[in-house]
Amino acid sequence: MIIEILATGDEILTGAVADTNSAHIAQALKDIGLLVVRHSCVGDDMNHLVSTLQEIAIRADVAVVTGGLGPTTDDITAEAAAKSAGVELVLNRSALRSVEDYFRTRNRPTSSSNKKQALLPLGSDAIYNPAGTAPGFTLKIGECLFYFLPGVPFEMHRMFSDSVLPNIETLQGGEHEFRKVKTLSTFGLTESAVGERMKGFSTEFPEIKLGFRAKFPEIQIKLYASGTDRETIDKLMNRATESALKTLGENVFSVDGRSMEAVIGGLLTERKGTLAVAESCTGGLISHMLTNVPGSSEYFLFSGITYSNDAKTKILDVAPEVLKRFGAVHEKIAEKMAAGVRQIAGATYGLAVTGIAGPGGGTDDKPVGTVCIGLATARSTQGFRFYFPFNNRSRNKKIFAMKALDIFRRELVGRVEPLMGRKNSS
Amino acid sequence: MIIEILATGDEILTGAVADTNSAHIAQALKDIGLLVVRHSCVGDDMNHLVSTLQEIAIRADVAVVTGGLGPTTDDITAEAAAKSAGVELVLNRSALRSVEDYFRTRNRPTSSSNKKQALLPLGSDAIYNPAGTAPGFTLKIGECLFYFLPGVPFEMHRMFSDSVLPNIETLQGGEHEFRKVKTLSTFGLTESAVGERMKGFSTEFPEIKLGFRAKFPEIQIKLYASGTDRETIDKLMNRATESALKTLGENVFSVDGRSMEAVIGGLLTERKGTLAVAESCTGGLISHMLTNVPGSSEYFLFSGITYSNDAKTKILDVAPEVLKRFGAVHEKIAEKMAAGVRQIAGATYGLAVTGIAGPGGGTDDKPVGTVCIGLATARSTQGFRFYFPFNNRSRNKKIFAMKALDIFRRELVGRVEPLMGRKNSS
Repeated sequence: MIIEILATGDEILTGAVADTNSAHIAQALKDIGLLVVRHSCVGDDMNHLVSTLQEIAIRADVAVVTGGLGPTTDDITAEAAAKSAGVELVLNRSALRSVEDYFRTRNRPTSSSNKKQALLPLGSDAIYNPAGTAPGFTLKIGECLFYFLPGVPFEMHRMFSDSVLPNIETLQGGEHEFRKVKTLSTFGLTESAVGERMKGFSTEFPEIKLGFRAKFPEIQIKLYASGTDRETIDKLMNRATESALKTLGENVFSVDGRSMEAVIGGLLTERKGTLAVAESCTGGLISHMLTNVPGSSEYFLFSGITYSNDAKTKILDVAPEVLKRFGAVHEKIAEKMAAGVRQIAGATYGLAVTGIAGPGGGTDDKPVGTVCIGLATARSTQGFRFYFPFNNRSRNKKIFAMKALDIFRRELVGRVEPLMGRKNSS
Repeated sequence: MIIEILATGDEILTGAVADTNSAHIAQALKDIGLLVVRHSCVGDDMNHLVSTLQEIAIRADVAVVTGGLGPTTDDITAEAAAKSAGVELVLNRSALRSVEDYFRTRNRPTSSSNKKQALLPLGSDAIYNPAGTAPGFTLKIGECLFYFLPGVPFEMHRMFSDSVLPNIETLQGGEHEFRKVKTLSTFGLTESAVGERMKGFSTEFPEIKLGFRAKFPEIQIKLYASGTDRETIDKLMNRATESALKTLGENVFSVDGRSMEAVIGGLLTERKGTLAVAESCTGGLISHMLTNVPGSSEYFLFSGITYSNDAKTKILDVAPEVLKRFGAVHEKIAEKMAAGVRQIAGATYGLAVTGIAGPGGGTDDKPVGTVCIGLATARSTQGFRFYFPFNNRSRNKKIFAMKALDIFRRELVGRVEPLMGRKNSS
């Protein structure tokens, strides 16, 4: 089955908005074992749109098209689809119901421009949109089955997973295939190191397809398995996951796509622990990440972003003479900050970061990319120093924050053994 | 001139990585007055790559291709280009110099797989890569001039603006056109409100093209002007900018693409002011934004992320009885937090946020989306309350943070006289 994706709209064509829809669709299809052959993007131009639809109709068996189904005059996808198929636009009863439903449940009247959205090419089937005004539709153009969806990502995602994906799965037809995907999220290994380590895995499990996805600074490893017997696939996937976990070790922080901060939230909730944070060079990013998790107010008590030395002394109780002796970026200072913030917030754990994100502030001794991390618990206070060679403020903030969270995660799961970056002992 | 963009690589095709390169290229071209007609994406597959290149060669005058120029076996773009043009791959001397330069300046030996990167289609001109190992190249396939660039965004951006863009500009040829782009960044108006307000502008300045770009929660308005006489264009753009500024008022926070936090950084530096922040529901996002600006340590002193009431009392000195009386989300509390953090950090300004980002924590009285903002200066302490209807934690954090920063910016631009002292005298 040859599948293509087409994104439409001037906003994407001119680069005003990046096309995330096509990546979303390609990934979801890959997760059920289908590979897309080509993506394209054209603007809100009738001639280009029609000729592109007709080209795709010749090349592909199935195509997913996003965008241009809204109520305004530059929404021309339905008309272009009708022209490409050589049919008329007609009022589609179930599309009209989809539009009217949307407005009725929100106690708003349906406007005539919204009713225009129910005009679909003759022969199409409407696709219900539970999240917005634009119904989608399917249409055969030549031998190719097209799925037309709105471009608003929130609406498109819902409709794609509710209606389109199950439909495409039935098209695969024949013997029903069971598919499983497992996502291992890692931190602490480079992409090439992950690839190197997983070489043996591919020999051991030739039936499992591997996919890698770098989402700086984490790397996701996806395991894909498929077959006709569900039990066999389940067992195979369990063995494969176990083997991959052994290979990748403690670098794996989640096996279900959860973020580092969500994993830490789960561990803290489980252990009824609370956390206080002291940040310098990460400037609030650690706190921002932690509080992106709904319910984080249950365990996240306080964070002090102590950019100035004065604040480190006043708020975190780091003695001025210690700051003077070691300088603000030092594992001893990170320790003091962690102990200080734990104390003042009355938290189970204190986590602290001080370093040089750049571009300024580096020295020969402590170049840009140096970060010191402190972790204080009821039992001990530890300090670490690492160096990362990115020389980019935004990347440094990200990797410093992840490194600190990873050290904390390893403490929570029962081990502190940082692997990435250069470790210096004080 | 018909221009197309092609992104290559399995990572993009399968959605493992979103294609930001094509958007970048399309935008840069639009800024010099050129519109792209189509983007495409194909994977690392020789047949698909060759047939796509040949199709583009028939349709377009100019094409920009990214990806597949690396040293590994799945980097096949140079070979595909050679096949499409019906020529051989040969060692390109200046490409080899580009590769060797890269390694020499980093004191590393050139490997044979890297030398492979200097094998280019016969007849190509190498494009120097100052930031990585993969040289780019130009090649005529049929009547179309192709620019091949590496897919690593950081490298591609440099090469595109250094080499490709100036080259494409000369291709426009004929009478030289001067082009100007002005970017106004706004906060506080919806996209449709911006469009509504700018209706009169388009009547007044029909020669100026308008572009809108929503980058939640800000909206950028781009003004494009072009013509053969530079002075006329400059004058027109100045008048147009002034008119747009009048129309959009204080909602415009920058006229040069700078972010809200960079604008605030500039204003604080100018006024020799310092800032301390107290965050509750934004959870560190305000601090993270402020510290994304290089050099922010000069004016950003401290932020207290006081998620718990206890921390609000202990760190910010908000009296427990006041917290009890008003509840944590109240403009009075925001005021107290702002005054408290200003005091403890010894800053010129104190900015505070407390609210309900959701999904939990809302009440009838204070639903999810409620935010209270406090601003303390040497002269006064003010409290505000707002409600945003997004019902989405991540969006709420973003708009709460921008709203607080915008209130602070308006305070800063409203103050004409420079501030005398850095510290609070009390």
